[in-house]
Amino acid sequence: MGENRRILFKLESTGAEQSVDVPPGESLLEAAKRAGVALDAPCGGSGTCGKCRIKVLAGDVKGGQSRHIAPQEFADGWRLACESYAESDIAALVPDTASAWQRSIRVDGSDSIRGNAAFRELLGELEAMGLKPDSGLSLTRLALDPPSIDNPMADRERLLQKLERQTGMRADVALYALCKLPSLLRQADFSVCCVLRRETAGLTVLDIFPGGAAPVIAGLAVDIGTTTVSALLVNLLSGDILASASAGNGQIRYGADVISRIIESGKSGGQERLRRAVTDECLVPLIVRLCEAAAIPGEQIYRAAIAANTTMTHLFLGVDPAYVRLEPYTPAFFESGPLSAAALGLPLHPDAEAAIAPAIGSYVGGDITSGVFASMMFKKPEISLLIDLGTNGELVLGNSEFLMSCACSAGPAFEGGDIGCGMRATDGAIEACAVDRKTMAPQCTVIGGQKPLGLCGSGLIDLIGELFRCGIINARGKFVKEGNRIRRDEWGGAAYIAAFADESADGREICLGESDIDNFIRAKGSIFSAIQTLLASLDFDYSVIENVYVAGGIGSGINMRNAIRIGMLPNLPAEKFKYIGNSSLHGAYSMLVSSEAAAMIEQTGRGMTYIELSTHPGYMDELVAACFLPHTNGALFEYIE
Amino acid sequence: MGENRRILFKLESTGAEQSVDVPPGESLLEAAKRAGVALDAPCGGSGTCGKCRIKVLAGDVKGGQSRHIAPQEFADGWRLACESYAESDIAALVPDTASAWQRSIRVDGSDSIRGNAAFRELLGELEAMGLKPDSGLSLTRLALDPPSIDNPMADRERLLQKLERQTGMRADVALYALCKLPSLLRQADFSVCCVLRRETAGLTVLDIFPGGAAPVIAGLAVDIGTTTVSALLVNLLSGDILASASAGNGQIRYGADVISRIIESGKSGGQERLRRAVTDECLVPLIVRLCEAAAIPGEQIYRAAIAANTTMTHLFLGVDPAYVRLEPYTPAFFESGPLSAAALGLPLHPDAEAAIAPAIGSYVGGDITSGVFASMMFKKPEISLLIDLGTNGELVLGNSEFLMSCACSAGPAFEGGDIGCGMRATDGAIEACAVDRKTMAPQCTVIGGQKPLGLCGSGLIDLIGELFRCGIINARGKFVKEGNRIRRDEWGGAAYIAAFADESADGREICLGESDIDNFIRAKGSIFSAIQTLLASLDFDYSVIENVYVAGGIGSGINMRNAIRIGMLPNLPAEKFKYIGNSSLHGAYSMLVSSEAAAMIEQTGRGMTYIELSTHPGYMDELVAACFLPHTNGALFEYIE
Repeated sequence: MGENRRILFKLESTGAEQSVDVPPGESLLEAAKRAGVALDAPCGGSGTCGKCRIKVLAGDVKGGQSRHIAPQEFADGWRLACESYAESDIAALVPDTASAWQRSIRVDGSDSIRGNAAFRELLGELEAMGLKPDSGLSLTRLALDPPSIDNPMADRERLLQKLERQTGMRADVALYALCKLPSLLRQADFSVCCVLRRETAGLTVLDIFPGGAAPVIAGLAVDIGTTTVSALLVNLLSGDILASASAGNGQIRYGADVISRIIESGKSGGQERLRRAVTDECLVPLIVRLCEAAAIPGEQIYRAAIAANTTMTHLFLGVDPAYVRLEPYTPAFFESGPLSAAALGLPLHPDAEAAIAPAIGSYVGGDITSGVFASMMFKKPEISLLIDLGTNGELVLGNSEFLMSCACSAGPAFEGGDIGCGMRATDGAIEACAVDRKTMAPQCTVIGGQKPLGLCGSGLIDLIGELFRCGIINARGKFVKEGNRIRRDEWGGAAYIAAFADESADGREICLGESDIDNFIRAKGSIFSAIQTLLASLDFDYSVIENVYVAGGIGSGINMRNAIRIGMLPNLPAEKFKYIGNSSLHGAYSMLVSSEAAAMIEQTGRGMTYIELSTHPGYMDELVAACFLPHTNGALFEYIE
Repeated sequence: MGENRRILFKLESTGAEQSVDVPPGESLLEAAKRAGVALDAPCGGSGTCGKCRIKVLAGDVKGGQSRHIAPQEFADGWRLACESYAESDIAALVPDTASAWQRSIRVDGSDSIRGNAAFRELLGELEAMGLKPDSGLSLTRLALDPPSIDNPMADRERLLQKLERQTGMRADVALYALCKLPSLLRQADFSVCCVLRRETAGLTVLDIFPGGAAPVIAGLAVDIGTTTVSALLVNLLSGDILASASAGNGQIRYGADVISRIIESGKSGGQERLRRAVTDECLVPLIVRLCEAAAIPGEQIYRAAIAANTTMTHLFLGVDPAYVRLEPYTPAFFESGPLSAAALGLPLHPDAEAAIAPAIGSYVGGDITSGVFASMMFKKPEISLLIDLGTNGELVLGNSEFLMSCACSAGPAFEGGDIGCGMRATDGAIEACAVDRKTMAPQCTVIGGQKPLGLCGSGLIDLIGELFRCGIINARGKFVKEGNRIRRDEWGGAAYIAAFADESADGREICLGESDIDNFIRAKGSIFSAIQTLLASLDFDYSVIENVYVAGGIGSGINMRNAIRIGMLPNLPAEKFKYIGNSSLHGAYSMLVSSEAAAMIEQTGRGMTYIELSTHPGYMDELVAACFLPHTNGALFEYIE
């Protein structure tokens, strides 16, 4: 046995340094995990995804060479952390791009919130259903008589007496408001403005402000995705969005999919590590940034609504998800009553409650029940299909009479995971792409209009669809043409260069290799075969489907025609498709602004049924057939040019 | 200006060391306060009480000589911290006896709980009123069907379905129980035992155990006195006491009375310092010790009930008490809804609720409303007088028709504060004493049967009563005889030696000086004059009083005859007096075991009226007249020998 080595990680993003001792045989990725240094590793450290890049600054490192590291980069000290081992004490730079959550906390103020229009539309739909914004919170102004020697009634009782007279309801004062009460009453000459919450037993005064103030009553809507966490700060009285933000899920260093996370959570201390990775490292800074953008303190967030898949919900609540993946696939809970946001570790008002979207099974979680609500498919007479392209794919088929769901392990390809040049649909992502059949040159649309950094899901669909349309790749995704955009490497693999080093934003080539295409084909195949199986189980075919709602972080630029061309979506007329973005977040928003909507989502979830695909006869055959471009049964896609 | 000095405090109790830098002119007591070193200073650092003794081990100290330090002690390095200043870096020993809370956390297991009989009697009285132990908590056993592939319902929903069928009530699972649920269900073969709490909206599953377990459902009753904190661990289903404990209130280093504490809380960070002094330093270790004694974890304490005076309640909740002492004497709250024990910093079950006894005014707090309940005077037709001899004195006069209360600032003498040799009624305290008229020798009864350490309240009453009866002191409390038990010091004061150095437990003389007697006479005078004023305000005299309940930490050995002799209690037949101990803790116990009792205490509080003595005409004259042994109007005590 050799001796321990000391590793010093320097974070490019913050300049912070962190050290850890490693025993011989432990990779630098493992060391980073133990040190709490956030390094993305969607492939779980198997050397395939190429995301865990670090730059060795001092000391000797063994290994780390990879097709993901160009020779010049290798000479400059770049290594894959998962395949590198310290031969001496070393210092290594962790670049911004190696950590999704550190790199890309993205905050928009209310003026520039993308999709603000979508939420306004949703608000309109809620109102059309008779659901006005009503989260149980309200603002009431009270003018009290000041105390005197003849009337030395205590502040709390003075306040409640007035409040109960004014509202006709019993009321109580929460501890936080009680602590503010004596000095605030006197500063404000006994004229105050109370933030109230309606409860079963009466009203609770959550907060108190001077009578002349117009405090914002804010709420927090969150979607905890396996790859990405998104959050909205909302004015609860109007439904207006005050700020929005998203970041990578810090758990990604433990692997891209929920199964890797469940396995990690079974290790000693793993559950708490994963809870912290999403809460302390991700949600807490997101909330801080949202509050900064909206210029309100966290204490003014009085309610939260959270949608996530079943495993993410378990880990966020600190509940063991082990039995989610063990037969008979039993989660610890489908629903949960309102929980204390403070107990969940969120820096909101100490008495804020968090509503959690209900799950219906181990692999159909609150992200889907809230998505079903946001799509409004649950109240339409015609049959709709909801496809949520997250790290897993989940499908729901149904209408106001029935709702049937299933899940398939599509992997993180639609969110850019498991793809060398993949990234989330944020600034720098190629979101659409056409390829010239002759020159093979691409014409790309990049989010934010800048030079490209990588490809998001919609860009991948376009590029693979175009490469196939142009005959550059075959039905198995293998390159069958040569040219200046095609490069073959020493391992025999080929890749398409979507951007040369001098065309990209960070000076690194953006190229799509055969293993990337392979990963993507498996992902799209699992979606398509799931749709086929779901329909077949009901003796339906495509023709019954009136609406296809595509949700998820794949990018709003998704070209449905190309998605059909590669055999990912069913061959239906274009007007039946609608990209609805992050429907999980839309559902969380609905739960947040309307308690009735929250109750409705719970009710809808109870009525949904679930098909377990892995044990469903025929699914595996469907999957194998779908792992071609577009499919072994070309007839399914015959009208596509 | 001189330079800063470094002070190293060594704690005799734990061996711990703590350092702090002091600027010139800062006393060692101030330095100890800043360093968080617990030194009692009931006189607030004015040099009069003699409690803040430290022993200088190294370095030079200026000052600290005092009548409280014998010449030999001074030579050995003993000083009063409040009057000592560092001339160099120094090291000082903090003896156990210098810190009430460190010295005297006292825990009794259930076998040896003093006063256990009193609680059994109280339980009997509650039952006679139709109040069975019912704190809303119960234990229910459930046998669930294990999940299967055909019935993969989540654990929570599986549990709740069975529970709702069995009880006919809606139910929810608290987060703590949810976290335990998946592994426990499987360990226990789906046969479990649930701890339930009844709420307005239904049942909450607070905790879960294997079906065969018989977990204790424990509750915590607390009396937070200005000087002493007492707590009981109670079996909530039977009402049995599992363990009891008491300790000095850590806030005592900021002064003995509530006014000093309010002033300290107004300083920067003072409120939080005081909250920590009682919670982190005192209640938390008490709870830990109680749990050890009863061999249960803190998480099995599901409910708490707390009684305290108005200022202590404010400080415990973290609410500014400033307006308690400013005209028009308005507390921030009289009542509070059930509060989260976790939010109050108590290491109980995370969902445990704490009920706080209601106050009725700035100086009549929850200790008194709960005392009124414990005495049962509020439901008797005859008129009773409750006298609570805490750090303040509070009185309640009344019956089932009316209850009138007042408070007087008696100071801490009855609990041994402000008296050089004073101590609480714990082991080593002289609780009763007779003096031989000829030899002047005392005959003492010591709690625990050991050698004496000091005098508790009842011992002080006896000794002063005896010294007066024997003509050793006069009506002004001055010594008028000489003898081997009487010593005159260089400052002209005289003292009575109750125990010579070789007779005491710690080798220090126990002596009662004229300034001690003076403090005691002011304390007893303020009680007596308050009784007089209360009666006069109703045009009553003594004859209407059928029961006198004496409560507080004065000690169960109180000799009512001697208390009358010195003019502290009214001259009524002995059979009308009853010492009821810590009635505040008895009330907290009642609130804990019976939710109905808690509601009744709230109702009783709302019906009580309060007289402000300080503005009451005639009170000052009464007080002056009562500051003699026994009184300027001897006729009031004429039947006493």
